[in-house]
Amino acid sequence: MLPFDITEYQTRISKTKQKMAESGIEVLLVTDPANMNYLSGYDAWSFYVHQMLVILIDEPQPIWIGRYQDANGAKATTWIYDDNVIPYPDYYVQSSIYHPMDFVSEILKQIGQANRYVGVEMDNYYFTAKAYERLKQGLPNATFKDADLLVNHVRMIKSDQEIEYMNRAAEIAEQTMYKGAASIHVGNRECDTAAEIYYHMISGTDKYGGEYPAIVPLLPSGENTGAPHITWSERPFKEGESVIIELAGCYKRYHVPLARTVSIGTPSKKLQTITPIVVEGLNEVLDAIKPGMTCGDVEAVWRKSIKRHGIEKEARLGYSVGLNYPPDWGEHTASVRMGDPTVLQPNMTFHLIPGLWFDNYGIEISESIRITETGCKTFTNYPRELIVQDPYPPYNHQGGKIS
Amino acid sequence: MLPFDITEYQTRISKTKQKMAESGIEVLLVTDPANMNYLSGYDAWSFYVHQMLVILIDEPQPIWIGRYQDANGAKATTWIYDDNVIPYPDYYVQSSIYHPMDFVSEILKQIGQANRYVGVEMDNYYFTAKAYERLKQGLPNATFKDADLLVNHVRMIKSDQEIEYMNRAAEIAEQTMYKGAASIHVGNRECDTAAEIYYHMISGTDKYGGEYPAIVPLLPSGENTGAPHITWSERPFKEGESVIIELAGCYKRYHVPLARTVSIGTPSKKLQTITPIVVEGLNEVLDAIKPGMTCGDVEAVWRKSIKRHGIEKEARLGYSVGLNYPPDWGEHTASVRMGDPTVLQPNMTFHLIPGLWFDNYGIEISESIRITETGCKTFTNYPRELIVQDPYPPYNHQGGKIS
Repeated sequence: MLPFDITEYQTRISKTKQKMAESGIEVLLVTDPANMNYLSGYDAWSFYVHQMLVILIDEPQPIWIGRYQDANGAKATTWIYDDNVIPYPDYYVQSSIYHPMDFVSEILKQIGQANRYVGVEMDNYYFTAKAYERLKQGLPNATFKDADLLVNHVRMIKSDQEIEYMNRAAEIAEQTMYKGAASIHVGNRECDTAAEIYYHMISGTDKYGGEYPAIVPLLPSGENTGAPHITWSERPFKEGESVIIELAGCYKRYHVPLARTVSIGTPSKKLQTITPIVVEGLNEVLDAIKPGMTCGDVEAVWRKSIKRHGIEKEARLGYSVGLNYPPDWGEHTASVRMGDPTVLQPNMTFHLIPGLWFDNYGIEISESIRITETGCKTFTNYPRELIVQDPYPPYNHQGGKIS
Repeated sequence: MLPFDITEYQTRISKTKQKMAESGIEVLLVTDPANMNYLSGYDAWSFYVHQMLVILIDEPQPIWIGRYQDANGAKATTWIYDDNVIPYPDYYVQSSIYHPMDFVSEILKQIGQANRYVGVEMDNYYFTAKAYERLKQGLPNATFKDADLLVNHVRMIKSDQEIEYMNRAAEIAEQTMYKGAASIHVGNRECDTAAEIYYHMISGTDKYGGEYPAIVPLLPSGENTGAPHITWSERPFKEGESVIIELAGCYKRYHVPLARTVSIGTPSKKLQTITPIVVEGLNEVLDAIKPGMTCGDVEAVWRKSIKRHGIEKEARLGYSVGLNYPPDWGEHTASVRMGDPTVLQPNMTFHLIPGLWFDNYGIEISESIRITETGCKTFTNYPRELIVQDPYPPYNHQGGKIS
C-alpha cells in the first residue's frame, strides 16, 4: 500500500536528522501533513485535528500521535510499527478544557524527551498559536527552536519515483484542462465547468486514479479575472468574456499545476495585446533556465522580458511544488522572485505562473517544470497560448449531466 | 453579489462587538476564513497566505488586510469600503525575512491601535505560532487576549436566510448521495465514485450551483471502513465489500453533511448486526431532541440506546455545522458528547454522525439537523438505512466517462 519503497522513507528520515543535527534539534515535532506523509506515508483527511509525527534524533522510528479514531488509518498507511502509533482520547478534540498538546507533552515526558531541544514548525497552518503555548506550558524544561520548513527543504529535490508520480499527475492535469476548457461556452455556468474539471481530475486516466488537489480549481471569469483566487460561482458564461482556469493534476498527493486563459469567442483587444507578451516572457524563461542559476536570476529574465513592453509584475513568478495537502500546493521554500538565493538543482520542480492581473481583467498561462542536468523540461505539453472557445459550439460538449 | 443583505452583516458585527466588550477586547483580529466571510462576505481561496479582518470596537467598518493580488477579490466580494482594503506587498508572502504580521503591526500602530486589548484566534489553523510571536514583537504595548471561537459562537444560531442556503445545500447533498451510491459496483474504482460525487456536488441542481466542501468526500472501503478519514484510492470495488460515503452539499459556503454505508451485494453478518443498532439509536436521538436540552443530554440518549446492545462509542456523536472553509466543516463550538453544556436553541444546526468503527470494519449513517421550536428537523430525506447495491448492475450506471 505504501507509494514508496521503505528505503526511500529511511533516506528521507536520515536527511531530516542531518538537518536536525545542523540546527541543534534533538526532537522534531512534524505537524505539516505533507511532511508527515513524506516521512511516514501517513495519508488521511485528519489534519483538522491536532496530530504530529515525532522524530527523535537517536531513534530509528518516528512516533505518530493523533486522534483515537485515526489510529487505524495511521497503522494502515505508514511504515512505522503499530506500537509507535499513539492515539489520544476523543475528549481532547475541539475542547475548551483539554488540548491535544497537553497529551503530547505528557508522552514526551514519559519517554524522557522533556528536557531536550525541540523543533516546531512555527509558521505551519497546523501548528497554531495555542498549540505552541500549551506545549511550552507542558514542557517547561524543553528548549524550543523554530524548525519551520526544515523537512520542506529536504523535499525540494525529487527522487525518480516522485518524478514518475508527477508525470502521472501531469497526464491528469493535461486531460483535465482540455475537458474543462471545452466545457466553457454560452449556456453553461461556472459551476458546470468546475464540475467537469473535478470529474476528470478525480477519475484520472484508465491507468491512474486522481486525488483531491491542495487548492481547488480556480475559475475567475469576466471582471473577476483581475482577482486570481476567486472560486467559481453559479453565473452563466457570456460571449466575449474570458475565463482563467488554474488547476492541478494530483497523484499520490504529488501536484502538477497548470493555468490557461480561455476567451469565449473573439478575444478582447486587451487580451490580444498581453497574451504574446506573457508567452514570450515565459518562453524566454524556459529557454534560460539552467542548474546553477538562482531563483532570483530566473525572475530577472522574466522581469527584463516584460519590461521591454512597459509592464511590471508585483507577484512572484513561481514557487517550488510537489507533495502537498490543503490549503496550498506550494512548498513554501523557494520562490521565483527578485533576490531569492535558491540555487537550481536537477529534479527540483517549480510552478512558473506568469500571471498579470489588472483592475478588471487578467491573464495566466503557466507551466510546471522539472530542472534537468542541462536546463528544464515542462511536465505537460498543453499549447502555450490563449484558448479561444466557440461561444455556441455545434454540439453541447458536456452532453448534459451524467444521469 | 453579496449572499446576505447588508443589515445582516451589520447585525453580525454588532453581536461580535458585544462579545468583544464582554471579553474586554477592543481590537479583534479575525483570521478564521469562515469568520472573515461571516462578517464581511470575503470569499476566495487566499487563506493559504496570512490575511485577516480587523474589527475595532469603536468603528463601524471592518478592515481587510491581505495580499496585494487578493485586494481586488476583497473589493469584489465584501460590503466594506474600498479604502478599508489594505494590501501588503508580495515580498511578504512565504518569505524567510518578512512576515505579514510585521505589516499588520505597522498598520495597527499607524491607526492608533497599538496600546489596546487585542483579541486573536489562538487555536485557528490560520493563526500560526509564528504569526502570534511576530505580532507580540511588533506590538509590545498591546495586551493580547484569546478570542478563539468568539465569532464562531455568534455563528451558531442561523438566520432564516442561512437556513435557506442550508436547504439548498441539502438538496445537493441528497442528489449527490444517490448518484455516488449508484456508481458503486464491481468494475468501478473508488476514484470513479469520488469523481461522480464531485460532479454532482459541484454542478449542483439546475437552480443552485454547488461549491467545494470544507472536507473532501470521505470514501473508505473494505477493511478501511474502520479508518473513517481515509480518502479514496484507485482500487476497484469488490463484491461483498462495504463502502462508507461521507459527503456534504455546499451552497454559499454553507454545508449539509450526510453519511451512508453501502454494501456491494449481500451485507456481511457484522453489518447486518450493527446497522439496526445505529439506526435505532439515531432515531431515538432525533425523537428526543428538544430546545432546552444540552448537547450532553442528547449524547446520553444515544449512549443509553447502544449500551442496551453492549456497545460503547469513543468518538463524539456530532457537532455544530454551517458556514466553513477547509479543513473542517464543523464550527468547533458545541460537540454532542458527554458533559457538553451547550443548550439547544431554535436554528442551531448539527451534524449527528453515529459512526461505529472497529478494527477492520465500520458503519456511518448520519443526519444533519436544525433545532426547531419544538424538536428538530433533518435537512435531507435520504432513507436512513444501509444501502445495498447490485454488484453487477444490468447497465453501467456511470455510463463511462464524459467524453
